[in-house]
Amino acid sequence: MATTSEATPTRILVAVNESTIKGYPHPSISSRGAFDWTLQKIVRSNASGFKLLFLHVQVPDEDGFDDMDSIYASPEDFKSMRQRDKARGLHLLEYFVTRCHQIGVDCEAWIKKGDPKEVICHEVKRIQPDLLVVGSRGLGPFQRVFVGTVSEFCVKHAECPVVTIKRSPNETPQDPVDD
Amino acid sequence: MATTSEATPTRILVAVNESTIKGYPHPSISSRGAFDWTLQKIVRSNASGFKLLFLHVQVPDEDGFDDMDSIYASPEDFKSMRQRDKARGLHLLEYFVTRCHQIGVDCEAWIKKGDPKEVICHEVKRIQPDLLVVGSRGLGPFQRVFVGTVSEFCVKHAECPVVTIKRSPNETPQDPVDD
Repeated sequence: MATTSEATPTRILVAVNESTIKGYPHPSISSRGAFDWTLQKIVRSNASGFKLLFLHVQVPDEDGFDDMDSIYASPEDFKSMRQRDKARGLHLLEYFVTRCHQIGVDCEAWIKKGDPKEVICHEVKRIQPDLLVVGSRGLGPFQRVFVGTVSEFCVKHAECPVVTIKRSPNETPQDPVDD
Repeated sequence: MATTSEATPTRILVAVNESTIKGYPHPSISSRGAFDWTLQKIVRSNASGFKLLFLHVQVPDEDGFDDMDSIYASPEDFKSMRQRDKARGLHLLEYFVTRCHQIGVDCEAWIKKGDPKEVICHEVKRIQPDLLVVGSRGLGPFQRVFVGTVSEFCVKHAECPVVTIKRSPNETPQDPVDD
């Protein structure tokens, strides 16, 4: 391998999201799967050869159902809601950054708001990673029609190589909402 | 990283084919692109962490046009045609095996006959690699309708993570047949 390519680490963008279990601010099973696969199969012991970039896209209306039961009495209530969203996002990224720090892999993490598939492709264009890794819940064709997977969109539209890590069947939660 | 995962190398299957320039038994631009990407971005200096598996699928009727001008006068003529196909396939694989040998990456290479997309997915099922890398000519949606890309089929059907390496626009030959 050329010395120049050894000097520049391979930059891998990992799109991460929260578990959909409400009030459970932890990585989704598929996000963790994508991250673990990247470490075990690609980075391996070559920590200095890679830089991991974590992108978490928050859907503005994601907590709509929770908020149905909330009462908004002052502008402060909206502010605290936004702060809660931010805290959840930071908690999620902290998980990945902490693990990278333990292993000694250089990393960066950030949060964007918007439609995940659009934002991911936009960020790929902006930061030009060498590889985009996205987790997938491995839905069947019937479920996919309704869900419209982020991973399929990225495979088609992201301007860099993309790898989709499907969740293994034994990790599928009984209730699909508990991802 | 766990010591156990370091003991087992990451097995990457790279699907390779010939250049479509007739009488030019060398890797296609997209095959070489996929291979170079794998070395530069994934394997990097960690040669012992990876094992590369090269699969070349020969389409039985691939040389139909060449053979239009051939005259078959005896069973020997068919035999020599098959030997020529085999020699071309071996020549192709030799390129990849030689380069791996130079770098010190463990590898295996083999040839199968059949429909490339079907055979690749079948081989993935059989050998269960950690990652499948396929080159793509990066055709536009209009061209794709007629060509029906192998990479798209593999992304959908292969039972392992798949990454498609698109050929960069500046590597596109003027005549599309000269891939």
